[in-house]
Amino acid sequence: MLPISSDNFDAAVKAVDILDVSSATIRQICALAANLEKQCGEEFVHLEIGNPGLDSETIGIEAECEALHRGVANKYPRIDGIPEVKEAGSRFVKAFLDVDIDPECVVPTVGSMQASFTLMLLLAQRVKGKDTMVFIQPGFPATYHQAKVLGIRRESFDLYDYRGKKLEEKLRGILASGRVTGIVYSNPNNPAWTNLTEEELEIIGRLATEYDAIVMEDLAYMTMDFRRDLGRPFEPPFVSTVARYTDNYILLVSASKIFSYAGERIAVACMSNAVYHRRYEALADFYEMPGFGEAYIYGVLYTASSGVAHSGQYALAAMMNAACDGKLKFRDNCLEYGRRAARTKKIFRDNGFHLVYEMDGPEEISDGFFFTMGYGSMNSAELQKELLRYGISAITLPSTGSTQEGVRVCVSALSRPEQYDMLEKRLKAFHDEHSN
Amino acid sequence: MLPISSDNFDAAVKAVDILDVSSATIRQICALAANLEKQCGEEFVHLEIGNPGLDSETIGIEAECEALHRGVANKYPRIDGIPEVKEAGSRFVKAFLDVDIDPECVVPTVGSMQASFTLMLLLAQRVKGKDTMVFIQPGFPATYHQAKVLGIRRESFDLYDYRGKKLEEKLRGILASGRVTGIVYSNPNNPAWTNLTEEELEIIGRLATEYDAIVMEDLAYMTMDFRRDLGRPFEPPFVSTVARYTDNYILLVSASKIFSYAGERIAVACMSNAVYHRRYEALADFYEMPGFGEAYIYGVLYTASSGVAHSGQYALAAMMNAACDGKLKFRDNCLEYGRRAARTKKIFRDNGFHLVYEMDGPEEISDGFFFTMGYGSMNSAELQKELLRYGISAITLPSTGSTQEGVRVCVSALSRPEQYDMLEKRLKAFHDEHSN
Repeated sequence: MLPISSDNFDAAVKAVDILDVSSATIRQICALAANLEKQCGEEFVHLEIGNPGLDSETIGIEAECEALHRGVANKYPRIDGIPEVKEAGSRFVKAFLDVDIDPECVVPTVGSMQASFTLMLLLAQRVKGKDTMVFIQPGFPATYHQAKVLGIRRESFDLYDYRGKKLEEKLRGILASGRVTGIVYSNPNNPAWTNLTEEELEIIGRLATEYDAIVMEDLAYMTMDFRRDLGRPFEPPFVSTVARYTDNYILLVSASKIFSYAGERIAVACMSNAVYHRRYEALADFYEMPGFGEAYIYGVLYTASSGVAHSGQYALAAMMNAACDGKLKFRDNCLEYGRRAARTKKIFRDNGFHLVYEMDGPEEISDGFFFTMGYGSMNSAELQKELLRYGISAITLPSTGSTQEGVRVCVSALSRPEQYDMLEKRLKAFHDEHSN
Repeated sequence: MLPISSDNFDAAVKAVDILDVSSATIRQICALAANLEKQCGEEFVHLEIGNPGLDSETIGIEAECEALHRGVANKYPRIDGIPEVKEAGSRFVKAFLDVDIDPECVVPTVGSMQASFTLMLLLAQRVKGKDTMVFIQPGFPATYHQAKVLGIRRESFDLYDYRGKKLEEKLRGILASGRVTGIVYSNPNNPAWTNLTEEELEIIGRLATEYDAIVMEDLAYMTMDFRRDLGRPFEPPFVSTVARYTDNYILLVSASKIFSYAGERIAVACMSNAVYHRRYEALADFYEMPGFGEAYIYGVLYTASSGVAHSGQYALAAMMNAACDGKLKFRDNCLEYGRRAARTKKIFRDNGFHLVYEMDGPEEISDGFFFTMGYGSMNSAELQKELLRYGISAITLPSTGSTQEGVRVCVSALSRPEQYDMLEKRLKAFHDEHSN
């Protein structure tokens, strides 16, 4: 029965061995929600996990099976990627970002997760003394955790307080130490669904060049700034990117969300030609390979997994090429997330909630995969717990590196009409209890 | 034309940007051989790279395509693995090693390469002060390199001088420091194709328990000690393993060689129940997860790649189950490597070469995927260069951590009769030049 009593809630937390719910990982929150579901006998509304809620693009499935039947499974994949996916990746960033990257500099990875893990490792080695990654927060908690696992020094700040021109002073203050090797953010932002403005991207790009920091721009949700149609290949408007303002960039393009292909763990890391070909003494000493791109491929990726499953590479190549040919309208397919977000946001707002990250410059943020919600002055941990008691599962903003109070809402799992009814009924009950 | 002149050879080394050929990676030697092939217009005999030379098991291909058509590609894989592959892995180690491991403790990885990379990372964190990995050499150079990339302290010794009872004193001398967290080796051995005797495995197991080191046993070539038939499920003789002598073990079982499935990057790390369930203060502090297995899955593997491609997991589960059912005779399929090795060894021996790693206790080593060859008193670097000049590509023993002089010969690429003729003719010419 909902709401769950505080005692029963605490018992479930103990049962799944979580030390602090508000800082728990998404997977731990899932485990907690599963335990609570069992205990109370009611299905939860899952707003915590970002599984693609759409079917995979069939072009990928077909290409993958065809490659398998052709007999690619018995050969080690080239660590630098099959030529097809390198070509397709290069074409794809040209088609949708209007950015020129040679196929050589496009390297497949086991999801962008492997890309950020392995790239951070190398970024922390390239120049002695450049030992710090800067995270523009909020962000995907796992990326921040990766740097910790790798023993890399981290700095971060919440973009909330530094939008627009304010960003320059803040970022410069951090870069001035000379210790920063890389800057990480996702755009559109997970969890806030903010999009950096051109003014902000220009600042980041310019300062990255000035202080020799390399920007790792995670484009997991590419084209899902649905305020404009970014899905027409080789036609403006193009996806905003820092690549227009610096040569010091690496773009992470994953099939997980844009092609609903998360299960096959396939992405491409697209290094700028300049980054790929840069030579470093430290890499020559350590890997006997001075080139950044070469050291990345044969020094790091090789040791991390000996490359990426052959079949998935063919899938990604086929989907990217179909998108470039205008035959796979992935942006339009993903519009469903925008519809779900609009509907869900309204239910939250109707019950006393407010958007936490609300604006990009003068524009309200786009509807999309995520948004962030606060409730009055309730703090994040309390809000998360109270929502869980009402059968609604979400992660806190602080767990994403935010300094704001609230939770992240992910709409990907909301595929059935009755889930919206459940959400509405429960938020109403929540509001009834807490507005008194 | 062969042999290639020394000047032309040096020019090719420069062209592919190798600083020291004898310590170059396998991939670099491939690149050098490709360059030399182009230059002299003759196909090389490739003995350097260990690509499976057989077709993939079709049971895997079919299971993979079926899973894809069923729609697994849009869902993130469970980080701990799909239940099917966990069950199958547990069954498989019981069938062929007669070892009991719960399905919970079997975790898929992106090849054993990801397993060793991520496990070493965690092994170096589990107890403060236990910061060293011991490599029983010779070994797969990439594994040794992984520890370097991760900044983990390494110790190693060449098994050549410490077979049988001698192993105990040597190993104890290293373990006595208390700094050793793990011990790594492959069995059958890459590159020497030695197999540890029961006496040696007992020593390793007993000392691992005594000094709390965890053994990472790489079974990439499982059942390919062809001197006995190890391929009958649930029937003796079983594959030799340290698991019979200690609870401190993790077995790495990859589909790459046993099922000729290297292209799909899929393996399982099989932790002993004891290792999986051990709890560590250091892991509680760092990951907020005290359990070794849990910290491995949700703390490390999650950050390394967010799990393993869904389709490959289904392939591996199907192949392992078919093997357990006696329907997929993978050991017999791999016997072809033994036949190739016997033939190739004879050609080398007929032309003045000798086996470097020759015996396991009283028995001559098995024929299999690899063997090691020396030529008179010629040192490794010279031998490698001279063979390359004659159109034969191989890696040196020192590059595999050996203290012996010679090269590693891999027979996996020798699938065509004319390759044996080429090899014979070239080795004869080589011997004619060098025996004078």
